Amino acid sequence: MVENIAVIGCGAAGATAALQARKLNREAKISIFNSEPYSQYSRCGLPYTISGKVGDFHDLVLMPPDNWGALKIDSKLNATVDKIDHNAREFHYIGDEGEGIQEYGVLIFATGAKNTDPPIKGLDKKRIYGLRTLDDAKALATEVGRAKKAVVIGGGLVGMEAAEAFHEKGLAVTVVEFLPHILLAMIDPDMAEIVEDHCREHGLRILNNTAAQEILGKDTPSGVVLKNRATEEESTIDADMVVVATGVRPVTDLAQSIGVAIGPTRGIVVDDRMKTNLDDVYACGDCVEHQEFITKTPMAGGLGTIAVRQGRVAGINAAGGDETFPGIVGAKVTKLFGLEIASTGLTDDMAERLKVPIVKGSIKGSTKPPYFIGGKDLKVKAYFSKETGKLVGGQLVGLEDAAMRINVITLGIQHEITSVDLFEFENCYAPAICDTWDPLVEAANAARRRLKV
Amino acid sequence: MVENIAVIGCGAAGATAALQARKLNREAKISIFNSEPYSQYSRCGLPYTISGKVGDFHDLVLMPPDNWGALKIDSKLNATVDKIDHNAREFHYIGDEGEGIQEYGVLIFATGAKNTDPPIKGLDKKRIYGLRTLDDAKALATEVGRAKKAVVIGGGLVGMEAAEAFHEKGLAVTVVEFLPHILLAMIDPDMAEIVEDHCREHGLRILNNTAAQEILGKDTPSGVVLKNRATEEESTIDADMVVVATGVRPVTDLAQSIGVAIGPTRGIVVDDRMKTNLDDVYACGDCVEHQEFITKTPMAGGLGTIAVRQGRVAGINAAGGDETFPGIVGAKVTKLFGLEIASTGLTDDMAERLKVPIVKGSIKGSTKPPYFIGGKDLKVKAYFSKETGKLVGGQLVGLEDAAMRINVITLGIQHEITSVDLFEFENCYAPAICDTWDPLVEAANAARRRLKV
Repeated sequence: MVENIAVIGCGAAGATAALQARKLNREAKISIFNSEPYSQYSRCGLPYTISGKVGDFHDLVLMPPDNWGALKIDSKLNATVDKIDHNAREFHYIGDEGEGIQEYGVLIFATGAKNTDPPIKGLDKKRIYGLRTLDDAKALATEVGRAKKAVVIGGGLVGMEAAEAFHEKGLAVTVVEFLPHILLAMIDPDMAEIVEDHCREHGLRILNNTAAQEILGKDTPSGVVLKNRATEEESTIDADMVVVATGVRPVTDLAQSIGVAIGPTRGIVVDDRMKTNLDDVYACGDCVEHQEFITKTPMAGGLGTIAVRQGRVAGINAAGGDETFPGIVGAKVTKLFGLEIASTGLTDDMAERLKVPIVKGSIKGSTKPPYFIGGKDLKVKAYFSKETGKLVGGQLVGLEDAAMRINVITLGIQHEITSVDLFEFENCYAPAICDTWDPLVEAANAARRRLKV
Repeated sequence: MVENIAVIGCGAAGATAALQARKLNREAKISIFNSEPYSQYSRCGLPYTISGKVGDFHDLVLMPPDNWGALKIDSKLNATVDKIDHNAREFHYIGDEGEGIQEYGVLIFATGAKNTDPPIKGLDKKRIYGLRTLDDAKALATEVGRAKKAVVIGGGLVGMEAAEAFHEKGLAVTVVEFLPHILLAMIDPDMAEIVEDHCREHGLRILNNTAAQEILGKDTPSGVVLKNRATEEESTIDADMVVVATGVRPVTDLAQSIGVAIGPTRGIVVDDRMKTNLDDVYACGDCVEHQEFITKTPMAGGLGTIAVRQGRVAGINAAGGDETFPGIVGAKVTKLFGLEIASTGLTDDMAERLKVPIVKGSIKGSTKPPYFIGGKDLKVKAYFSKETGKLVGGQLVGLEDAAMRINVITLGIQHEITSVDLFEFENCYAPAICDTWDPLVEAANAARRRLKV
């Protein structure tokens, strides 16, 4: 019987692991350590504290610290674990309430990820921010009503959501994206173009294929030196504030210090039970890599959905249960200036990298029947494996009902349906909702014809 | 090789059948006959011509008559088929352009359904309407700006959509429902109560468990005599206009006249290829019965989605192809005063009638994470077979993203997923869209715990 579980990290994965461990095992000692001063909060909600769509920072806290006590889970916030002796099954921590030694029987790493520092000169100034922690968000929010010109370096999800938030607060915002398009980790270039056009129509400036080289200014930014990667032309844009959102990498130093194996994506290697290579050591969330669902290629989740699902599995197994994590499909979604952007499974680029030949079904449809006033354009893609005929990915962009539709594609991938299956899908229909043949079904039909099935 | 296909009926099923037959077979003679003066139009769109959400009646026409000629399909509108000699493979029709004899090699019945006449006295007055045809809608629309008090008899989908439309146009509208709740063919009583409360808050009057007995007045309605079925109390409410929407039945007289078999739901019996018991005779749409997907019980579709899917199969097979129709899950959806109402598979009542013991997962959730301002209440139900553990039905009611979520349940039913599968569903997540554990997944979890799996 497991008697003592320690969780390092109190983000979505760690907190879920601790909770689920307690649900299964009412007797075990459980403790959770967080290097941040907060109990579990929604990291994905941070950009919305800027725009006010989240009313208060503390609304993001999903697990009020007092609740840990009620669950008889010993929580230590603002406490950093700095040395683990796994043979002795104990670690040293130091924090607000002094230092100490924590013994454990089973250890769960949920140490998350941290921002990468891109090779840009002048990042050591004030008024240059990341957006990974609640403290980051608090600092960033002070720029509302103060900054006039913001530059966001990195047009991924976090960068774009931060850019939208500052734009909504009246700042002139420029997004600088190194790659040819924004959001390429999530959608194909043609879909990204739709998103870019939409954001630009709302007043956002987006500079693609552009390297930020240096942040000018004395103590604070005055401008950003850019280089167009196609023309190699250099230019400088004004900025009084900069957000750096160029990606994250897993935090694994503690795990590595005791010999936990790290994989090709630099995440902790785990099996389907979220166990590492070491006995009595589990890991979950942004610090691990698991398998991409279709090809079984090692992949970092980097998603709240994956973190809580992995955390649940890790917590239950750490507490003596037996659950498995089924792999990462990778459903991603956001909304920018009202436009819903959704993706799941393999994009065109991912399919190429993972050597999955695909057949594409692509449709420009509408969210409503043509006769019903107010339908919105919807671009839909459904990708199928040329070899197996199975659904392997999908993307949607539209002003309504794009995000919820991606759920059908994800479930279809998880249950290995074919283009014929998706074509035979009985979508719901009503004039005020959707046409008789949903654009998803039309996309499947387009692919089905190409596959000649 | 099929040389001559005749389709009787030019609704969603018939028109789709003719089109798909032509797609497969470029040589065959194809003709289509409609007793109405219009080419294929959206029947479901009719209520929205009243409110103006469909701009013009003719916007509903999905297949302009000229297009038939372009496809080399001979269309005869306003032409009634009155006698078939199946041994001779010919039928007699009479219409606008005189009468004639049509020969055929293969015949497709797509004769649809018609309104039932309920046992109510005084239905022979003016200003009493059904809402089944484009002409019905044109007649009804004349009441906008003329009638003050409308009574809608029947709180099914058509009745409720018509009631909403007239209410939006400023009429005082009362819905009289014979059963204890509205929409019971689609949702459970507790879900119907949410819908009723919402409609009443918007000013609609709904009288449940109430029989309309007589429509008073000389030439036109002055009132409706009602009887409360619980108390047997009689009362009269004012009305200057009445809509009767008490359901439909399949139109099968022509088919029966040549010996086509009729089933227990009074629809034409077809196999999975949409063939009837007679050689060279197919049928599709509202005039047929097929199988409920889960129990294989005979069931009428009565849905546009089913009509076009069956029409496609019938048309292709009539033209020499080989397609099958997979059965009716029965996804139904509508929007009333902004509230989305969605259902699929078995309701509680249907499960009882079809003798499928079910385990229920029911959740009151929200469309967004709790910290994100503006999320809407969402009630979700997912039903699983107690015997097989498989998903057999679901319902959602909420002010946003209810309808699109039902698609996940429908696809899950079609692919026979279990409560564990739905619990492991990787829903999309973003603060502006949906929480990490979608309410659908929470509902699956509730059922999974009851099933102890």
